[in-house]
Amino acid sequence: MSKANPLIIDCHGHYTTAPKALEAWRNAQIAGIKDPSVMPKVSDLKISDDDIRETIDNNQLKLMKERGSDITLFSPRASFMAHHIGDFNVSATWAAICNELVYRVSNLYPNNFATVAMLPQSPGVDPATCIPELEKCVKEYGAVGINLNPDPSGGHWTSPPLTNKHWYPIYEKMVEYDLPAMIHVSTSCNACFHTTGAHYLNADTTAFMQLLEGDLFKDFPTLKFLVPHGGGAAPYHWGRFRGLAMMLNKPKLEEHLLNNIYFDTCVYHQPGIDLLTTVVPSKNILFASEMIGAVRAIDPQTGFQFDDTKRYIEANTKLSAEEKFQVYEGNTRRVFTRLDAALKAKGR
Amino acid sequence: MSKANPLIIDCHGHYTTAPKALEAWRNAQIAGIKDPSVMPKVSDLKISDDDIRETIDNNQLKLMKERGSDITLFSPRASFMAHHIGDFNVSATWAAICNELVYRVSNLYPNNFATVAMLPQSPGVDPATCIPELEKCVKEYGAVGINLNPDPSGGHWTSPPLTNKHWYPIYEKMVEYDLPAMIHVSTSCNACFHTTGAHYLNADTTAFMQLLEGDLFKDFPTLKFLVPHGGGAAPYHWGRFRGLAMMLNKPKLEEHLLNNIYFDTCVYHQPGIDLLTTVVPSKNILFASEMIGAVRAIDPQTGFQFDDTKRYIEANTKLSAEEKFQVYEGNTRRVFTRLDAALKAKGR
Repeated sequence: MSKANPLIIDCHGHYTTAPKALEAWRNAQIAGIKDPSVMPKVSDLKISDDDIRETIDNNQLKLMKERGSDITLFSPRASFMAHHIGDFNVSATWAAICNELVYRVSNLYPNNFATVAMLPQSPGVDPATCIPELEKCVKEYGAVGINLNPDPSGGHWTSPPLTNKHWYPIYEKMVEYDLPAMIHVSTSCNACFHTTGAHYLNADTTAFMQLLEGDLFKDFPTLKFLVPHGGGAAPYHWGRFRGLAMMLNKPKLEEHLLNNIYFDTCVYHQPGIDLLTTVVPSKNILFASEMIGAVRAIDPQTGFQFDDTKRYIEANTKLSAEEKFQVYEGNTRRVFTRLDAALKAKGR
Repeated sequence: MSKANPLIIDCHGHYTTAPKALEAWRNAQIAGIKDPSVMPKVSDLKISDDDIRETIDNNQLKLMKERGSDITLFSPRASFMAHHIGDFNVSATWAAICNELVYRVSNLYPNNFATVAMLPQSPGVDPATCIPELEKCVKEYGAVGINLNPDPSGGHWTSPPLTNKHWYPIYEKMVEYDLPAMIHVSTSCNACFHTTGAHYLNADTTAFMQLLEGDLFKDFPTLKFLVPHGGGAAPYHWGRFRGLAMMLNKPKLEEHLLNNIYFDTCVYHQPGIDLLTTVVPSKNILFASEMIGAVRAIDPQTGFQFDDTKRYIEANTKLSAEEKFQVYEGNTRRVFTRLDAALKAKGR
């Protein structure tokens, strides 16, 4: 399966650099929740292809070329999903706009970006309401995955755990389309949780433990979840989780979870990546950077951007060349089968 | 400062094996919240010294001898603090009972246990109400530290961040008595968060990020916090936190936080301990096992208990002998100055 020059597929990128008009429209929408007379129409948002190119050429694509990555699985900005704002209709309109914009990026740069859709989740609303948007993104936009927010309340955690039947309508569609979900929260509106420094990582740990505590993959043996940010605290506490699985009378993690759960490499220093690759089987690790994302700074210890995660994989001595190929390309094509099919159709 | 045979001080132990009469009394108290006619009196709780000896001799002390640790900083069972139950008076009575029991352990085994107090926190109640219990534990019980719950709601996170003035009355007393606080939540009553597999680790990460985001140690330069469970996700994501500190225009972590924040070694596998000792300066690492605690199982990979953390320190090749002495004894005596004074008074 190895090859000399693997495709470098970054499975975790958000459109954090979208044209300012998008944020302005969202602010108008938020104002419109209280005062319907100022609610903008979808058609009020004007973003040209050139506007999009400017935000991509000088940002993600520039860095992809510099760092040597080929394809980014690209989804709407995670912190802007903000499912806690407004009701389902507000989320539905916002998700439709954001997904279309990401689709346009993938369409303008078909060799470099593939669409991952956000869902129009809303706290307390049946996730089944997200199905039409999900289906549209798969059928019309060629979406290869979705982002699923386990806490649409934004830091109050009012939804049931991911193992609850509440979520099954989404899972049924994921299985039907063989569509993986990255479990990714949005901005925190709880003052206790810094969005990127606490809420994101906590959500990863929380989701992993919910799945450990339950038996979801007995009901959905082919369901695939990506736990981002290197799995939150899970790999660092792998012994704790192996022990908790024993205490909860679950099978070994490999058998209980690792046919269905994958971790990305959004861990922004060498010792973290080295730990991840030491404790998690390489078949469960997918290359990612979340570039341009949470940490936009140059590490004074290395002279390179913190989120230039490819450097950590390159310098890692634990993974063999074959395993690095799997992390860069093989695993991602195996997990994101719709991406694999699209690439194969182009002879890649 | 090194010596051939350091005292092995475990800075994180809870009385998880307390006599069943304690739990029965607590259940009666909880019943009494709804029906005052069944509210038990404090004097209804009968636990003899022999009852205590039985629970310690066959559990913590037995394992301490087997594993070769000398002293445990001992506090009431963390998951039983359950500050979300009842009002301040309920918490005050419960904390007083639990603290006295831990003090009795320390009194029965003065060479092996030192008291760390829980506080009678209650959601929405001014933490200043905890001061009388805190003072009693220091003055009458010789408490060497406290456990501070950043989320007395039990998983709903309704209190302000630790950097908020809300908490300052506690900090003022901590400074006055040079009393460190371990930041430790209690049981989760939010179905999303498994207590020991998610809530504990999330709280560690959350607290660390709150302190990173703020400037608390400008107001309290001598305040000392212990972030348990190896710092939650913080060391694994050290690059992310170093980058976030830069983005938030904070000094380097060493300067901003590491004169005041310490991590324990409750990380239950070798790669986790090796990561911790690689990224966190050894002066900030304190030996601990949280034994007998969250994970009570033998790791099939090693044949030893997951929480036998001394084995990971022993096998660690990153720390020098001098640094291991600091982790086992030196750092803990430097941070817990009241413990150090008590040990010195006994010629230890």
